[in-house]
Amino acid sequence: MITILRYSTDGGFTESNDPAGVAELPKDGQYLWVDLQAPTPEEAEVLSHPLNFHPLAVEDCWHEPQRSKVDDYGEYLFLVVHGVRYDAKKDEFKTHELNIFLGKSFLITFHTLHSRSIDAVKENVRRHPPLMARGMDFVLHQIVDRVIDSYFPKLEIIESKIDELEILLIEDVRPELLTRIFELRRTVAHLKRVATQEREILVQISRGDFPFISERLQVYFKDIYDHLFRIVEGADNHRETLNAMVQVYVSMVSNQLNHTMRFLTLIATIMLPLTVITGIYGMNFDFMPELHWTLGYPLVLVAMLVVSVSMIVFFKRRNWL
Amino acid sequence: MITILRYSTDGGFTESNDPAGVAELPKDGQYLWVDLQAPTPEEAEVLSHPLNFHPLAVEDCWHEPQRSKVDDYGEYLFLVVHGVRYDAKKDEFKTHELNIFLGKSFLITFHTLHSRSIDAVKENVRRHPPLMARGMDFVLHQIVDRVIDSYFPKLEIIESKIDELEILLIEDVRPELLTRIFELRRTVAHLKRVATQEREILVQISRGDFPFISERLQVYFKDIYDHLFRIVEGADNHRETLNAMVQVYVSMVSNQLNHTMRFLTLIATIMLPLTVITGIYGMNFDFMPELHWTLGYPLVLVAMLVVSVSMIVFFKRRNWL
Amino acid sequence: MITILRYSTDGGFTESNDPAGVAELPKDGQYLWVDLQAPTPEEAEVLSHPLNFHPLAVEDCWHEPQRSKVDDYGEYLFLVVHGVRYDAKKDEFKTHELNIFLGKSFLITFHTLHSRSIDAVKENVRRHPPLMARGMDFVLHQIVDRVIDSYFPKLEIIESKIDELEILLIEDVRPELLTRIFELRRTVAHLKRVATQEREILVQISRGDFPFISERLQVYFKDIYDHLFRIVEGADNHRETLNAMVQVYVSMVSNQLNHTMRFLTLIATIMLPLTVITGIYGMNFDFMPELHWTLGYPLVLVAMLVVSVSMIVFFKRRNWL
Amino acid sequence: MITILRYSTDGGFTESNDPAGVAELPKDGQYLWVDLQAPTPEEAEVLSHPLNFHPLAVEDCWHEPQRSKVDDYGEYLFLVVHGVRYDAKKDEFKTHELNIFLGKSFLITFHTLHSRSIDAVKENVRRHPPLMARGMDFVLHQIVDRVIDSYFPKLEIIESKIDELEILLIEDVRPELLTRIFELRRTVAHLKRVATQEREILVQISRGDFPFISERLQVYFKDIYDHLFRIVEGADNHRETLNAMVQVYVSMVSNQLNHTMRFLTLIATIMLPLTVITGIYGMNFDFMPELHWTLGYPLVLVAMLVVSVSMIVFFKRRNWL
Amino acid sequence: MITILRYSTDGGFTESNDPAGVAELPKDGQYLWVDLQAPTPEEAEVLSHPLNFHPLAVEDCWHEPQRSKVDDYGEYLFLVVHGVRYDAKKDEFKTHELNIFLGKSFLITFHTLHSRSIDAVKENVRRHPPLMARGMDFVLHQIVDRVIDSYFPKLEIIESKIDELEILLIEDVRPELLTRIFELRRTVAHLKRVATQEREILVQISRGDFPFISERLQVYFKDIYDHLFRIVEGADNHRETLNAMVQVYVSMVSNQLNHTMRFLTLIATIMLPLTVITGIYGMNFDFMPELHWTLGYPLVLVAMLVVSVSMIVFFKRRNWL
Repeated sequence: MITILRYSTDGGFTESNDPAGVAELPKDGQYLWVDLQAPTPEEAEVLSHPLNFHPLAVEDCWHEPQRSKVDDYGEYLFLVVHGVRYDAKKDEFKTHELNIFLGKSFLITFHTLHSRSIDAVKENVRRHPPLMARGMDFVLHQIVDRVIDSYFPKLEIIESKIDELEILLIEDVRPELLTRIFELRRTVAHLKRVATQEREILVQISRGDFPFISERLQVYFKDIYDHLFRIVEGADNHRETLNAMVQVYVSMVSNQLNHTMRFLTLIATIMLPLTVITGIYGMNFDFMPELHWTLGYPLVLVAMLVVSVSMIVFFKRRNWL
Repeated sequence: MITILRYSTDGGFTESNDPAGVAELPKDGQYLWVDLQAPTPEEAEVLSHPLNFHPLAVEDCWHEPQRSKVDDYGEYLFLVVHGVRYDAKKDEFKTHELNIFLGKSFLITFHTLHSRSIDAVKENVRRHPPLMARGMDFVLHQIVDRVIDSYFPKLEIIESKIDELEILLIEDVRPELLTRIFELRRTVAHLKRVATQEREILVQISRGDFPFISERLQVYFKDIYDHLFRIVEGADNHRETLNAMVQVYVSMVSNQLNHTMRFLTLIATIMLPLTVITGIYGMNFDFMPELHWTLGYPLVLVAMLVVSVSMIVFFKRRNWL
Repeated sequence: MITILRYSTDGGFTESNDPAGVAELPKDGQYLWVDLQAPTPEEAEVLSHPLNFHPLAVEDCWHEPQRSKVDDYGEYLFLVVHGVRYDAKKDEFKTHELNIFLGKSFLITFHTLHSRSIDAVKENVRRHPPLMARGMDFVLHQIVDRVIDSYFPKLEIIESKIDELEILLIEDVRPELLTRIFELRRTVAHLKRVATQEREILVQISRGDFPFISERLQVYFKDIYDHLFRIVEGADNHRETLNAMVQVYVSMVSNQLNHTMRFLTLIATIMLPLTVITGIYGMNFDFMPELHWTLGYPLVLVAMLVVSVSMIVFFKRRNWL
Repeated sequence: MITILRYSTDGGFTESNDPAGVAELPKDGQYLWVDLQAPTPEEAEVLSHPLNFHPLAVEDCWHEPQRSKVDDYGEYLFLVVHGVRYDAKKDEFKTHELNIFLGKSFLITFHTLHSRSIDAVKENVRRHPPLMARGMDFVLHQIVDRVIDSYFPKLEIIESKIDELEILLIEDVRPELLTRIFELRRTVAHLKRVATQEREILVQISRGDFPFISERLQVYFKDIYDHLFRIVEGADNHRETLNAMVQVYVSMVSNQLNHTMRFLTLIATIMLPLTVITGIYGMNFDFMPELHWTLGYPLVLVAMLVVSVSMIVFFKRRNWL
Repeated sequence: MITILRYSTDGGFTESNDPAGVAELPKDGQYLWVDLQAPTPEEAEVLSHPLNFHPLAVEDCWHEPQRSKVDDYGEYLFLVVHGVRYDAKKDEFKTHELNIFLGKSFLITFHTLHSRSIDAVKENVRRHPPLMARGMDFVLHQIVDRVIDSYFPKLEIIESKIDELEILLIEDVRPELLTRIFELRRTVAHLKRVATQEREILVQISRGDFPFISERLQVYFKDIYDHLFRIVEGADNHRETLNAMVQVYVSMVSNQLNHTMRFLTLIATIMLPLTVITGIYGMNFDFMPELHWTLGYPLVLVAMLVVSVSMIVFFKRRNWL
């Protein structure tokens, strides 16, 4: 699907879905935003003609995965940023690519998946078309800001997952928990990697490396940089927590083994002496006076009871039971 | 709450709580300090008007958490630093933000929580108003110095907690100890992160990146830098100690298991041979001469005693008991 | 084997296998590509004469292993890159070297093993000789692009091996699995090292350090750089997964030990009390009334059954069975 | 205690202990060294007047701990270096601070503890006063050289402690060993940190950042840098060894557990079958022919011996005993 | 021992062992190489006079260990490089120092131990004296090249040791293996450290930091740099392998423990039920019908056999035996 938004300071705002509408490039006082969402090859053709973008950049649009980056092609910038999506059904985090071309007065966005950030900005522009006259770098900021801000709720989902795992961990140590911790750790590592790359991009943008980003907007991009800084830090925190959980897991397995062993010690320590006692009075010697006492049997039973109880008390005192 | 402190080299010192009092900006020889503590939206309005600060900086004041940073907006600096607070009841360390605007002759402090450092400096200024004439960078130094110095007692609280955990660890290895060690480690890591960011700010300030900080004061900010250097090092030390404690914990769990196993070995090694002996004389063979000896029974009991004692001696010698 | 490909903008394309054909160096509008595949010493002689390359570079061609590098000899560049090959029979990954000399209008490739990337580019050139007129840097790009792209299928083989190991790991923990994980980890580390070195080369090429690489092609080499970036990241991912697998392995060994111990506890806990019971009624006291009850024997059997069953139920409840 | 050493190229050498003697600052051809060892506040007053040092530097003298650093105050340098001391009684390593002010022709040393390095240099100067005419940077070099060289014997003490721990570790694995290893590791880490900071100082001095250090002496400070390089490397070595010792410790605990388990297996494996045999002939069946054999009893005893011996042989062969 | 080699483009080649022969420094077209091998103090005197080297450099010659480094003294360079030697008897790797002074037309080598690399180059020079006329930097290259190349066979010795340890590790896990692995790891770490320092030196030499190294030779030193790059990489590989071996060791100890426990489980699980059975028929109840059956005894023996066999089958199926 292709969406073409045009605004000129005198004429006003038009929107169309016809690829042919891209033909005329914006002149002074005119602004163009073309959004290509899962475009057909015909629609995507506009990138090569009339927009005349470098074949490599066009190729990058089609081939996922790309790393987050910004390439300066002289007459336009080519950016790749990543949005994050959480699929609650499969319990999976997925990053999806957003390819952006930024020229002096045009902005082309290309993405194979539906993007809420783009939709929200589009809606804004439709309601207040003069927003486009604030410059396409302003529109770019709106989009990137939303994409990056959508990382925070994902970090929170991860946090709630960590909390859940922590509760499960205390209940019982099952190997599957370890697998889930590792999976989550990989997700966090992936998120951190993406955010770190994007932070690098925003350093470049906010220090004024690119002429299409006006000085007035640099401070706004610096603000996104601050957000990414916090996202990276949050991911680092989560990673650290998950690493500590692995250590707790390992330690709890050892501990459980320890308790099992103690329990076994107890059983053996109580039962084995009793066996020896019964063994003694099961011997067939001719001369065993105790065997002929009237109270021999109950006395032995009492002795066995005393031995058991005193051992249990001993264990209780050593805090083993 | 808003507090407006004004001082002019000729006129003297005034203090008010009326937002309208900010209206007039300080001229040459005049100095202004506005402190906003948990301000109402109306009071905070002064940031936008008449102070005219950048919307992003104003937004940063309201939104926590921010990383510690310094932004140069040309006509003023915007700093975020963090104080640390220890809540003894919940046994929690919390960082709280202090947002500061520094202009040529004004200083605006913004914080949602009550800050002892700010109060102390305010009190100082009230007693000796000419302090303000030493420049708002001097007042800034007073505040930041106190904020950073308040980290040291927190490091000491952490140290005493570590000492306490070390004693508990030697007494008994409970899984909850591990959890507490990890929590403390996270606190230390957080503190270190904040201090590292602030150290970065103070590098910038003390090497003269910003025109509002006079050269005469740079050496004082360098001094705060030195304090932060020691705080980061102290946090590193604590972290290292806590990591070593985890290793000690794991090793002690293993050791305990080892001792339990030894004890079990002992019980089994002593009891099982005795069982075999009683088993032998419990057999029903017609021709077992020992059974008919008068001293058979006491001799077997003595033999069992000898076996037990010699085994205990053996274990003692191998240092297992 | 030596292959000499010549193209001149006016004359056309010739191919020969005679070392003597190298003699004449290309003039303006002429292009030369000499491919030496496992050359005889006589064939390789062309490197020294007439090509007159530096003896050290020539020596590097013959001696493996070399690190991936680019050396600027003024009149020509000397590159070493590595292809990766998977030997399915021996289940081994092997890197092989590709030595390349790039001059203004000539390209010399030297490799002891057959290279599919070189063959493919040769075939392309044979079909469309004018490709050579696009510059020898273009031909170089074609070769390096193919060499690097051939890393991706190898990363996929590694991924499928990891998946296979993961399944085996869940089935049973055998020490050989650990050995295989470590081997795979070393392969991944080796691959990463090579890719990192090559990424370094491509940074240099794509930022225009070398005059023989035209500006127009730099963006294409930047594209290879992006691929290497993803390869390094992929290798990092695999490495992380393999490290996590080691932790899972260790944890599963502990877990299995834990379960074995539980099972032992169960057996001992059930059998030892029964032994004590039978021991009691095996004692030879004169006065043991139960021995003379008609139902004594069946009652004891029932008691033993009750003890066993109640213990099994206890274990089931504690989730130990 | 204050010691004032003065030397002038014409006049000669004087020494006094009267703070008033500092009053006159050295002119051309005059040299002054003031050593303040645990000075009284009155003695230390000379720092502020007449020496007029910056209040922050003076404050740093009194407050320990400071990090090792060099501050350039324009008219003088302020250095903090650390000596290391080993208290054999408490078995503790302690660093102590040495604060140094270096001007064009004066040197002020300030230390709360007695310093052997300072004493040795003072003694040298007393014997050959013209040494001071070689410049106060020369005297500074003499002091710092001695301070740093005193690190080597401490590294050797640590090495001998490591050797001792290694021997103890092989003898028996006690948890206290682990604690001692960790303590030593912390000492080494502390030493390394101090040496690294001082190395940084010496980089700055030896590359000529400071005008008060003459070019002729830079190579001598470079020499101290080399020593610190070796100290840091030595500390790294020790740290690595101590880390390996922790791994050996953990592994030895596991190993011991392993051996204990084997021993238990042996006891159980030998005794339990014997118990079963005696159990069989302790049964009360009417028809058990073996019970009536004359040789039944000795045959069973022989059978039990055979079973025991063959099992011991089996264990010996599997190398378990 | 002192060896003085002189060559002049017109006069020819002379060799002497008399320290006095150093007196005359080489003029234009003259070349001098003085080799001091374990020199007497009198022989070493030539360093101070007539060569007039800086006292610190002379001191560095005598004091080992020094780090590998290059110091630029203006009129000459002072290099320290390390050779590696393997003492097969003690099974030890040792580094030994080679101190080198390089001037415009002289080269002084100083080493306390006999050096094969030096000897080989000396021999070369004796055979073809004009080699010296290619410049003393050329002779330096010859020496350093040989010193560095002698690292490769040592890496191979380490590799063969690793292979040997791997075989031993699979045979049996003895604690001494761990100690040997750690020792080897320290050797590798030491080697890597030395090679890394020397790589740093060669970066400086090959990028032309020093005027006494002619531009023509820089590419040759770059070649040595490449060798060191591979040596460092090789050491990294070995280190990684050794680290993996430690993990394998630890895992094998756990595994062995696991198998021992399984074996114990088996013995106990088989024997304990049999004990219970014999216990039952060893009870002395008056009414136990089975005791009076003619086939009672053989039936019980059969029952015991069935129980044992079925348990063994059960264990076999669970793959525990």
